[in-house]
Amino acid sequence: MAKGILLVADGLGDRPIESLGGKTPLEVAKIPNIDKLAAEGENGLLDTIGVGVRAGSDTAHISLLGYDPYKYYTGRGPFEAAGIGMDVIEGDVAFRCNFSTVDENMVILDRRAGRITTGTDQLAKAMAGLKCDDMEIIFKESVAHRGALIIRGKNLGANITDTDPHHEKAKVLVCKPIDPNDEASARTAKAVNFFVQKSYEILKDHPVNLERIEKGLNPANVILPRGGGVGPSMENFEKKYGIKGACVSETGLINGVAKYVGMTIVDTPEATGGYDTNCIAMAKNIIKALEDHDFVLSNVKAADVAGHDNNPNGKIDMLRKIDAMIKYLMENVSKDTYIIFTADHSTPCELMDHSGDPVAVCIWGKDVRVDDVKEFTERACAKGGLCRINGQNLLPILTNLMFVQDKFGA
Amino acid sequence: MAKGILLVADGLGDRPIESLGGKTPLEVAKIPNIDKLAAEGENGLLDTIGVGVRAGSDTAHISLLGYDPYKYYTGRGPFEAAGIGMDVIEGDVAFRCNFSTVDENMVILDRRAGRITTGTDQLAKAMAGLKCDDMEIIFKESVAHRGALIIRGKNLGANITDTDPHHEKAKVLVCKPIDPNDEASARTAKAVNFFVQKSYEILKDHPVNLERIEKGLNPANVILPRGGGVGPSMENFEKKYGIKGACVSETGLINGVAKYVGMTIVDTPEATGGYDTNCIAMAKNIIKALEDHDFVLSNVKAADVAGHDNNPNGKIDMLRKIDAMIKYLMENVSKDTYIIFTADHSTPCELMDHSGDPVAVCIWGKDVRVDDVKEFTERACAKGGLCRINGQNLLPILTNLMFVQDKFGA
Repeated sequence: MAKGILLVADGLGDRPIESLGGKTPLEVAKIPNIDKLAAEGENGLLDTIGVGVRAGSDTAHISLLGYDPYKYYTGRGPFEAAGIGMDVIEGDVAFRCNFSTVDENMVILDRRAGRITTGTDQLAKAMAGLKCDDMEIIFKESVAHRGALIIRGKNLGANITDTDPHHEKAKVLVCKPIDPNDEASARTAKAVNFFVQKSYEILKDHPVNLERIEKGLNPANVILPRGGGVGPSMENFEKKYGIKGACVSETGLINGVAKYVGMTIVDTPEATGGYDTNCIAMAKNIIKALEDHDFVLSNVKAADVAGHDNNPNGKIDMLRKIDAMIKYLMENVSKDTYIIFTADHSTPCELMDHSGDPVAVCIWGKDVRVDDVKEFTERACAKGGLCRINGQNLLPILTNLMFVQDKFGA
Repeated sequence: MAKGILLVADGLGDRPIESLGGKTPLEVAKIPNIDKLAAEGENGLLDTIGVGVRAGSDTAHISLLGYDPYKYYTGRGPFEAAGIGMDVIEGDVAFRCNFSTVDENMVILDRRAGRITTGTDQLAKAMAGLKCDDMEIIFKESVAHRGALIIRGKNLGANITDTDPHHEKAKVLVCKPIDPNDEASARTAKAVNFFVQKSYEILKDHPVNLERIEKGLNPANVILPRGGGVGPSMENFEKKYGIKGACVSETGLINGVAKYVGMTIVDTPEATGGYDTNCIAMAKNIIKALEDHDFVLSNVKAADVAGHDNNPNGKIDMLRKIDAMIKYLMENVSKDTYIIFTADHSTPCELMDHSGDPVAVCIWGKDVRVDDVKEFTERACAKGGLCRINGQNLLPILTNLMFVQDKFGA
């Protein structure tokens, strides 16, 4: 059977940058292999979610995998939780969390608890087995000061306010339903407040924290959930498309989206999520994953970091790394493998945040209608044979080329 | 009033073909009149149902006429039945059927009953007037070994298994509801099993079959329904658009779709559905139908046959015939007639089946914004003024040009 790779350069899309002479990083970077991909492929513009829509990386990847983010996304929490290996089930309300430091009046002294790196597993263990009324409370630590929380029970909502005031010297907020008549969200809010209160009671004198205080470090004496969302009912990827998928990514959030729809998560220890990441190690894992999978989603993160940092040269440098990665993939895939290269959204350097500008997309492989685009840039791809497509179109296009799609009709 | 023609070359779209030097049949064929249409018209790419979606001819034509196939299509049966002149009403479950030959244990000896050509009208007559509980059973013969069946009654479903095992030496299957709790489909299944059993009882000793046996021919001693679908409630074409439509087509299935929405069916005896068809006879019928209709849908079949046969030269030959047909139309339409030329889907020769690749589309007529596309090919049209559109966009585009569309708003 044919194979497929969807390689996403996070936040790659950009706008004309003054310091680059009105060009985008793609237009300046020397990327002979990506340009070869474009010259041998079919190109276009892609709106990951919708025309002009400012996408997040989570919602964009939901859409790129062919699921409607407006239907399935109610918050980042469920995907964050799935990304650190928690089993989120339909109807759960899940949150991402920070370990923080508060004083005895619940005023925040340090939102990240001195960027704690060790001992959070023991703190998490101390939080096990909590219940609020009939609701189960499940917490798991992640990297550094991060973690995820699941509230499990019947009739829960996620239309609630945050507990994290998002700045220091402010008091931890009481979680409330946004609509006072929304009983399901009121239930969730009650459990969240219970959890935050219990976290302070349980963690303030925990040996890990006593030791931190002794060392002059901020104790991780409270856990603040945010970004709550209801676990959606999403069709399994393999069932939806008839192909088995894996994910080679650098961030828990993308892994979480992939895991949520049942894809295999492949870890690449050399992938750091930063400028220093090892793209070739990721490429090798993609090729390896294709041995027993039909499809690999891969996300390289740092182009987005460069956008957020207003670092055009950082983005250009990352492009050279991705260029080498594409070269490796083109040289090592089997003849019946299709490569789709695109971004999940633009992160224009001068904007330092995500934008709704469309991104370039290339589909490369043996049966595509090769067009006359010769370089992979936002403006060149706008003239390609794909014209302008939507993120949710990619998997139908790919499964059509792979010839694994059922015919609709006779 | 302005007039409109929608000419569909079935399965015309293709992919680059190795034996044609990486070109598609449209890129190789000498089609000066179709190229003239493109040069004088506005061109684009068309996804008949959706981007990347592998369309059937039935679902594609439903979409090309501006109806949502996901809403209206539950199976081929209702359109097949309508296409042979049966009056399918909303809620009917309709099937296409084969006359087959079975032994006394209901094991299939010949799925097509020796490709019987005569006498099926008498066999059908013998099946008249059957009822199963409160359900009416209506059968009509079609060409050769084919026919169609309607089960009529309240509360019927079409979520059922096939009776036809689709290969010989296998036993006729018992029809069952796919979901055991689906009572509506269970009712239908009961009627189908009753019909199949009765067909054997009534036909096995029918004089037509006794005569066949005497001649050493396989008797048509059972009727096997398949492709069942619930008759949808589709708005009448003339009511929907304010224009009166006719259909000049070669196949029962396309006629069935057109008849289902109330269009006039115009028969062209010289249209065979094969390579030997007479496109000029069809063109003459189109021009004639426009005398008392505003719109004609026409479908020429054989380009699709060539695709299924992996016969690029056959497709190229058909294109020359269609080129002559377009010439005839351009020379014989009134000045205020618009011609839309497109395909219902790609049937790439090397794939030998339908694919989800978009097809070229051209809209020709006095008020279109002529673009700079000079030849009608998949790749050239991708750069046309229409950009990339959906099948359901065509009738709104046409009724806008014909100026018969109500303004939405003030």
